[in-house]
Amino acid sequence: MLHILFFLSLILTSIHVLAQDFCVANLEGVQTPSGFACKMESEVTPDDFVFSGLGIEGNTSNIVEAAVTTAFVEQYPGVNGLGISAARLDFAPGGVVPMHTHPAATELLYVVHGRITAGFISSSSNAVYLKTLRRGDIMVFPRGLLHFQINAGKRPALAIASFNSPIPGLQILESALFANDLPSALVEKTTFLDYAQVKKLKALLGGTG
Amino acid sequence: MLHILFFLSLILTSIHVLAQDFCVANLEGVQTPSGFACKMESEVTPDDFVFSGLGIEGNTSNIVEAAVTTAFVEQYPGVNGLGISAARLDFAPGGVVPMHTHPAATELLYVVHGRITAGFISSSSNAVYLKTLRRGDIMVFPRGLLHFQINAGKRPALAIASFNSPIPGLQILESALFANDLPSALVEKTTFLDYAQVKKLKALLGGTG
Amino acid sequence: MLHILFFLSLILTSIHVLAQDFCVANLEGVQTPSGFACKMESEVTPDDFVFSGLGIEGNTSNIVEAAVTTAFVEQYPGVNGLGISAARLDFAPGGVVPMHTHPAATELLYVVHGRITAGFISSSSNAVYLKTLRRGDIMVFPRGLLHFQINAGKRPALAIASFNSPIPGLQILESALFANDLPSALVEKTTFLDYAQVKKLKALLGGTG
Amino acid sequence: MLHILFFLSLILTSIHVLAQDFCVANLEGVQTPSGFACKMESEVTPDDFVFSGLGIEGNTSNIVEAAVTTAFVEQYPGVNGLGISAARLDFAPGGVVPMHTHPAATELLYVVHGRITAGFISSSSNAVYLKTLRRGDIMVFPRGLLHFQINAGKRPALAIASFNSPIPGLQILESALFANDLPSALVEKTTFLDYAQVKKLKALLGGTG
Amino acid sequence: MLHILFFLSLILTSIHVLAQDFCVANLEGVQTPSGFACKMESEVTPDDFVFSGLGIEGNTSNIVEAAVTTAFVEQYPGVNGLGISAARLDFAPGGVVPMHTHPAATELLYVVHGRITAGFISSSSNAVYLKTLRRGDIMVFPRGLLHFQINAGKRPALAIASFNSPIPGLQILESALFANDLPSALVEKTTFLDYAQVKKLKALLGGTG
Amino acid sequence: MLHILFFLSLILTSIHVLAQDFCVANLEGVQTPSGFACKMESEVTPDDFVFSGLGIEGNTSNIVEAAVTTAFVEQYPGVNGLGISAARLDFAPGGVVPMHTHPAATELLYVVHGRITAGFISSSSNAVYLKTLRRGDIMVFPRGLLHFQINAGKRPALAIASFNSPIPGLQILESALFANDLPSALVEKTTFLDYAQVKKLKALLGGTG
Repeated sequence: MLHILFFLSLILTSIHVLAQDFCVANLEGVQTPSGFACKMESEVTPDDFVFSGLGIEGNTSNIVEAAVTTAFVEQYPGVNGLGISAARLDFAPGGVVPMHTHPAATELLYVVHGRITAGFISSSSNAVYLKTLRRGDIMVFPRGLLHFQINAGKRPALAIASFNSPIPGLQILESALFANDLPSALVEKTTFLDYAQVKKLKALLGGTG
Repeated sequence: MLHILFFLSLILTSIHVLAQDFCVANLEGVQTPSGFACKMESEVTPDDFVFSGLGIEGNTSNIVEAAVTTAFVEQYPGVNGLGISAARLDFAPGGVVPMHTHPAATELLYVVHGRITAGFISSSSNAVYLKTLRRGDIMVFPRGLLHFQINAGKRPALAIASFNSPIPGLQILESALFANDLPSALVEKTTFLDYAQVKKLKALLGGTG
Repeated sequence: MLHILFFLSLILTSIHVLAQDFCVANLEGVQTPSGFACKMESEVTPDDFVFSGLGIEGNTSNIVEAAVTTAFVEQYPGVNGLGISAARLDFAPGGVVPMHTHPAATELLYVVHGRITAGFISSSSNAVYLKTLRRGDIMVFPRGLLHFQINAGKRPALAIASFNSPIPGLQILESALFANDLPSALVEKTTFLDYAQVKKLKALLGGTG
Repeated sequence: MLHILFFLSLILTSIHVLAQDFCVANLEGVQTPSGFACKMESEVTPDDFVFSGLGIEGNTSNIVEAAVTTAFVEQYPGVNGLGISAARLDFAPGGVVPMHTHPAATELLYVVHGRITAGFISSSSNAVYLKTLRRGDIMVFPRGLLHFQINAGKRPALAIASFNSPIPGLQILESALFANDLPSALVEKTTFLDYAQVKKLKALLGGTG
Repeated sequence: MLHILFFLSLILTSIHVLAQDFCVANLEGVQTPSGFACKMESEVTPDDFVFSGLGIEGNTSNIVEAAVTTAFVEQYPGVNGLGISAARLDFAPGGVVPMHTHPAATELLYVVHGRITAGFISSSSNAVYLKTLRRGDIMVFPRGLLHFQINAGKRPALAIASFNSPIPGLQILESALFANDLPSALVEKTTFLDYAQVKKLKALLGGTG
Repeated sequence: MLHILFFLSLILTSIHVLAQDFCVANLEGVQTPSGFACKMESEVTPDDFVFSGLGIEGNTSNIVEAAVTTAFVEQYPGVNGLGISAARLDFAPGGVVPMHTHPAATELLYVVHGRITAGFISSSSNAVYLKTLRRGDIMVFPRGLLHFQINAGKRPALAIASFNSPIPGLQILESALFANDLPSALVEKTTFLDYAQVKKLKALLGGTG
């Protein structure tokens, strides 16, 4: 019977068949255009593929009354190289995830509870695709397009977003325009916003210039 | 002021700038290696990007006491070409989504409620990555690897899976082996299962041969 | 000598070896996630691969004092499936190509003449990468990030942009926010702009709501 | 004449034009989602691109009377980053390469000598695509689908498989189910196999649990 | 027991789960950048995945004393969209597959019998990677690089090439330069070949101009 | 007002959201199939995204009376991982960029001034696509195909090429055949050029063998 026990090492003439089923990120290692260097397989455990951080309610005591908790590669190294990631969106009543884009990923939103009005804007015609979603609905936001989500109900809402990249990126419009040192005159000139409006939002969001 | 109203058509010398922000599937149209032909943009509405089918509980009155409701391109044409899709997994107590693979996608599972034991098997070492997940946990199942999910609690469980392909595929092991006309002797020879076992499962699952 | 003349048809046992060196778009044909259906090779001519539209100065007599002339697949069907396209940017003195993104492509800008101040905003840190470019300089704008270009000199300026997609998309921020029917209250809520500011720009850009 | 000898360094104003024609794996270097770090080009020799291991008959004195010799990136570092690899399949009379998948690659099989019955199972309909191949035949096995090969003749058979990935992976169904520590009760529950059958194959294949 | 027979249609709430395990080319259908439109799955048979044309010896009675038999998508529609294809190379004594490139694929060559000298030329340094291969050897030729194969023995030789594209393309240098209507003066100017040499080869290969 | 200033760190529960907007090459770091390891983001400056080398006229005092100045990843590390690069082509009267290929990229050429005759050769039919381009014209050269450019006017000409890869490669036919140690007899046998012609060009271009 012993010859049977080892049939696998026998059928494979090669001593070891390397697979790259996964490539858990070594966040201390080099970063490349395809992602982080892989942790050694011998050090990988089931915990690398599980993330519990999305089970914790985000703190919505802030100006937007919403919170985004990300499970991107930096928080969740197991998705490195696997082309997927996720985030949790908490909305207090009146909460809003403001206008933003994910430069590197399409988003699929699932409403766990509550009612959420969501929309994205097409680049070809500026058409707005807008819907109010209910518990259990999903909505897709194509890669790179401006979109937003608002709590449309009177109670808290919760949604889970998934992305087809471990590093989808998140460019929040207000932060991009007003939370840095881009000179206000340049913002005015490139956005047609009034100078006073720009200065006001710069002040609110901690920008300078 | 009129000269301002039309600045966009003026800045763009070209009459129209085609974008391919999305390509909602025309399921009656041709299918290609990259997906279905696109519906005309003028016929696209917000409803194309929203799917409510995952809000409906699947019927778990079956042998596995579980139900899988898919939001792949065929049910949800809006994801065509966008590299993402989803599914809903309902588990009665004792329910199981049996051993299966998605040949074309990585899966990310989010537990909406209940406790689910899930695992996948690495191809390089046959190592099993096994965890019991709780509400709010996510787990990733790398593309093409055998995996499964089981209700680990005494109450119903619900999970949402997302995939990084609009057509992830779903190859359920038992169906692949026993629910077709692959001759039982071939199944025996290629799986090392006993002939009687093969015949029994063929009978159960409606296979022949 | 005759046996030599035909060596090619002899070395190739197959009658014809199909290549897909190119796939000139049949703009009347189906559109798919990978692009347009191909024109028949027998109808392809050298003219399909050449586009002269970028040799014509754009009309900058408009509110932004700039003009964008595109050579995307719709204007230039020869680039279909080839992963590249181009555009011409004309700037009158004071001209600006306002804040925008290309959802599906990285841009590389080449300054033909004049001085242009250009910048993009990183999504991770909101850092601004800003430079004034001179004749002969090139600058790269990573995919999906907000960026802009301004004439920094007192004379007209000309630049050629190339993109690594035949359908890069072009989402101009002002048009996306103000030139459609997205309700002003929603714009206010998702951008933190004052309601009056939103209404003013809606009016300017032809938006409603 | 001297000015001619150096025309190349003259036409190229840049001192060196880096190409990445290849990226021979440094197996001691980091592994990333796109493959291994490259060996320095100055250390690359023709031998890096040639592999002689597939010229050696595999040892079929084992339970499956077959042998698989791989030329994946680990054995053949020259294919790193090049999107291709190969393997040799030896079959004694009665030999079988059991049911398996390649999670990351399509396989193309070429029969060098002998007769081989091969098949794969579609994920959409469980349809079996089954054929007996003769010397010179090729057959394609789409990525991620269960497939197998059996010696259909009375003499040894030899086939060469090529894959469109340097790391195709190889998940042998029996090993995945029975050669690890996945608890037998879980195997039973997720596969519908009888518990006794599971225990028997666990014993045969060296699994525990 | 009946409730068991139908467990699959029950676990899947959706009536049908579309997969795109394969996309056998409908050669009469549209061609797109990702390949041909798919044949309907109901019309697909096992024969679509098998090709016997490589089992037939090519006719080497020609100027190069070699023959190339292709199994690209046009001959072998089953590989459409699957990222792989193959070819058979027959060499009489003295036979040569002349200098050529595959614009869209890496090639992996397997020597079935005979001795073959093969080489490719790097684009960065013009370095030649040259080896004489024996039965069972494999060699890889990176995408797009000039390469060739010569019978290095006194007997016929046979090799099988596989490619990581269903449409690898084949640009034979001599045909590209001399078998068309590219004016001889242009060939001379762009290749530094003597005009007489160009005219001689134009005559040999059926070119004009 | 303070609670507003920090809304961003509040909405994002995660301390830092990593993006991979770009990956400026660390040319001293490892090279992988997807490109070079990234420079740390904290060390990235606007200058990394700008390259001024294409503003400098190349020296055309050479045998081809032309000069190619590259802005590939090695000269311009900012394009690493971004899928784009560029080059400058200077032509003296009579200048020619000889027959060559880019193994890894499609090229798009823009004529800044002068008249340039350019062409490429299809691999399927050896058809030549030839045009004389004027100031402002663009032409596309599909990946991997032989092509060339010639000054068609009596004055200097200037063109800018862009490529859809940061490492397009550049295989100049004459250098590949004659500027290395590939034995002249092998060149003769694989190209049908006369032995004397080969020796002559080997001598001219510094080749041996």
